[in-house]
Amino acid sequence: MRVLGIDPGTINVGYGIVDEDDGEIVMVSYGVVKLSPKLSMEQKLHTLYQKISELVSLYTPTIAAIEEPFVAGNVKSAFAIGRAQAIAMLVAVNNGLAVFRYLPTEVKQQVTGYGNGSKEQVQEMVKIQLSLSEPVLSPDAADALAIAICHIRRECYNRIIAESR
Amino acid sequence: MRVLGIDPGTINVGYGIVDEDDGEIVMVSYGVVKLSPKLSMEQKLHTLYQKISELVSLYTPTIAAIEEPFVAGNVKSAFAIGRAQAIAMLVAVNNGLAVFRYLPTEVKQQVTGYGNGSKEQVQEMVKIQLSLSEPVLSPDAADALAIAICHIRRECYNRIIAESR
Repeated sequence: MRVLGIDPGTINVGYGIVDEDDGEIVMVSYGVVKLSPKLSMEQKLHTLYQKISELVSLYTPTIAAIEEPFVAGNVKSAFAIGRAQAIAMLVAVNNGLAVFRYLPTEVKQQVTGYGNGSKEQVQEMVKIQLSLSEPVLSPDAADALAIAICHIRRECYNRIIAESR
Repeated sequence: MRVLGIDPGTINVGYGIVDEDDGEIVMVSYGVVKLSPKLSMEQKLHTLYQKISELVSLYTPTIAAIEEPFVAGNVKSAFAIGRAQAIAMLVAVNNGLAVFRYLPTEVKQQVTGYGNGSKEQVQEMVKIQLSLSEPVLSPDAADALAIAICHIRRECYNRIIAESR
């Protein structure tokens, strides 16, 4: 399976695409969609829609794993993140991808071993788990890869449980 | 000008389309897009995207006037409304409509004369201002028409100010 991980944000939306084959996870691509603060809200949503649509066309993932906004902090920025998440979900469903959503704590728990891992720990664990020679410098792209890895680990775990029954 | 008013909600998304010609406002259509609670979040967003796209194709408005979510209440439902709003904005900008956003208090102030008007007062004032023989029974559709009327009144006011200078 090929998973598109998305880390929605107000200015930077991270993405990471990984393949899983028999439990092995391989990095395909990653990056950041930048939403200039100069753009109006609707222009930002339009840019995001176009960029994610391009990624889906180019890499043809079958699954989208998208981070949930963290509501407890700044409500205004949580709202903006919720809007970015909605656009990512829409592109996924419009293109027939299965959509899964994960809380930041679930992703950190799965990738670093506990729910409050730092950004640096996520970057380091993503590097190790994808056997990269260098860490992913953008924390948003690293988070997106971590979300995709989180989904794959969950699916593999569920598969093992199902097969052992 | 033809204005599409949208009142985003979690289950019911109201819409109302009105024409303005030399200060006269005429109702074109109104209704509600229903989002079944049985649908997943991404299916709801997909349904909403399709339905609003159909309205835009059918009625070819040039302006979208969309209500802002009211954040002070239930945060979870405010988030869901924010997602619906994001989809409405996306359809508008993808189709080249100009997008305007209004707070609920602005709409009520403009249509009923004060910011805390009741749903019934909005329904009654929409009936009067659009010269309808019957009130609009759905409060969501009435709100959507009120948002469109609010935008037109503002624009007319701005035009008068500009011309008097």
